[in-house]
Amino acid sequence: MVVLANLFKEISKLTESELDKILPIVEGSESRLHEAMRYSSMSGGKRVRPLLVVACGDLFDVDRDKLIRVAAAVELIHTYSLIHDDLPAMDNDGMRRGKPTCHIKFDEATAILAGDALLTIGFEVLADPKIHPSADIRIRLIAELSSAVGPRGMVGGQMLDLLSSKIKFTKSEVLRLQSLKTGALIEFSCKAGAILSGVGSRETEKLTSFARDLGLIYQFTDDLLDVDSTLKETGKMVNKDADLGKATIVSLFGKKGARKEVSFLEERALKNLEIFQEKGEVLGALLKFVVNRRN
Amino acid sequence: MVVLANLFKEISKLTESELDKILPIVEGSESRLHEAMRYSSMSGGKRVRPLLVVACGDLFDVDRDKLIRVAAAVELIHTYSLIHDDLPAMDNDGMRRGKPTCHIKFDEATAILAGDALLTIGFEVLADPKIHPSADIRIRLIAELSSAVGPRGMVGGQMLDLLSSKIKFTKSEVLRLQSLKTGALIEFSCKAGAILSGVGSRETEKLTSFARDLGLIYQFTDDLLDVDSTLKETGKMVNKDADLGKATIVSLFGKKGARKEVSFLEERALKNLEIFQEKGEVLGALLKFVVNRRN
Repeated sequence: MVVLANLFKEISKLTESELDKILPIVEGSESRLHEAMRYSSMSGGKRVRPLLVVACGDLFDVDRDKLIRVAAAVELIHTYSLIHDDLPAMDNDGMRRGKPTCHIKFDEATAILAGDALLTIGFEVLADPKIHPSADIRIRLIAELSSAVGPRGMVGGQMLDLLSSKIKFTKSEVLRLQSLKTGALIEFSCKAGAILSGVGSRETEKLTSFARDLGLIYQFTDDLLDVDSTLKETGKMVNKDADLGKATIVSLFGKKGARKEVSFLEERALKNLEIFQEKGEVLGALLKFVVNRRN
Repeated sequence: MVVLANLFKEISKLTESELDKILPIVEGSESRLHEAMRYSSMSGGKRVRPLLVVACGDLFDVDRDKLIRVAAAVELIHTYSLIHDDLPAMDNDGMRRGKPTCHIKFDEATAILAGDALLTIGFEVLADPKIHPSADIRIRLIAELSSAVGPRGMVGGQMLDLLSSKIKFTKSEVLRLQSLKTGALIEFSCKAGAILSGVGSRETEKLTSFARDLGLIYQFTDDLLDVDSTLKETGKMVNKDADLGKATIVSLFGKKGARKEVSFLEERALKNLEIFQEKGEVLGALLKFVVNRRN
């Protein structure tokens, strides 16, 4: 676990430094937009997705530079989704990563535009030859990412999430919601390294299955934390979903049932790592971290 | 001019039918999101940008199918920008193309997500091999478009526009605002055909200069119309910018000055078409249409 903590720190630092290069400080009247983009993108966070990009890319011996660049693109898009989700018309959240959310720190209009800009730059970064000299590989990354975060992925999941306070969802619908809202981008983070290396289908398949389970576990433990934590521990509002009458994983499965499901998923995820032998150890540790996380 | 009217109708129909294929009717709880995307994307409009894509692509004998596909991507992104610009936190517009805006017809959250989804799909469409078999060409389209509509393009222009009711802008700042907000996507629409054909720099250069002037003329005549029109004629709120205390082209140049500037730009734009000889006639007619448009 000490190794994983160090790796988290290292990847987080490299990702922040890459984001710093991608999001320059701009003078002129529109500087407010660039400030807002930097404020939300560089406000820390665990950087779980970048670590996934790197750990999965390491399985295929992909250059660290390329992985960090993709990781930064993923973080840009993750940050855009957080900024828009926090808006008053959406989840109306005032705190994120222990700081005021973008629309509180700036204003609603700036937050909407900062989100739009980050999403756009995410694709711009992937189109740049710095990601990989092969246009085919860059296109594959863009195709996979746009599909993962579009209306049949992340945005569709957020739409379902908004509706979940009005419509009574079943277990399988809540799981589908979560797999779209959170799972799709986590899955992309795991697949990116395989795409960059151009490797064959069997390993990518295993990794995709692993990513799906990890994404689900992430959401289960997120919901469990939400019930058990305070604002101070998580840096964001807690227990909001239940207060809004949304069906949550905990409300549907119960705490015990949710933990049992996590154990089942963990076992299955570990099986999918076997093909990578000792190379999969970092991912195994990361899996354990997500299963046991306390914030 | 009769020819141009027919061409407008033809391209508009082809673009709508392409959008119809790209935005399917989806069942399930998230159908509301897809409905909103279709509502705003397929609500008519003049489809000036698609016509530009096709007319400029025709200069280089690019397949009509490919051009329409790019035109649809441009319209998806243009529509996203309109949906977000109309939001209460932004321009707070209730009418667009003679119909209630997306957040009035649906709600704010759905409108934000529909915009996000349309932007994302715009890139997904360009990444698809249907656009062009060469990944290099698809990547160039994505790189140019993301740069045109990001923080140093369209989104930056919208940020400046929001600030223009608070800060006193000079003539050159208002022109810069307009060239970012409206000009960048018009410029991309003109360049897309050249990119698809892979032709050299001299023609692309002329076309880019033409596009810049056309974009400016478009904004000048838009502002002139805004002063002279009614809601019924334009299908959207009029005179809002001046009411908000924003420096507009008409407030800075005066009506006469604005018309004089349009004449100057028209002459320069025509010069840039000379290299294309009779092939540039459609673009010449389109230029005349924009100069003289009444709605």
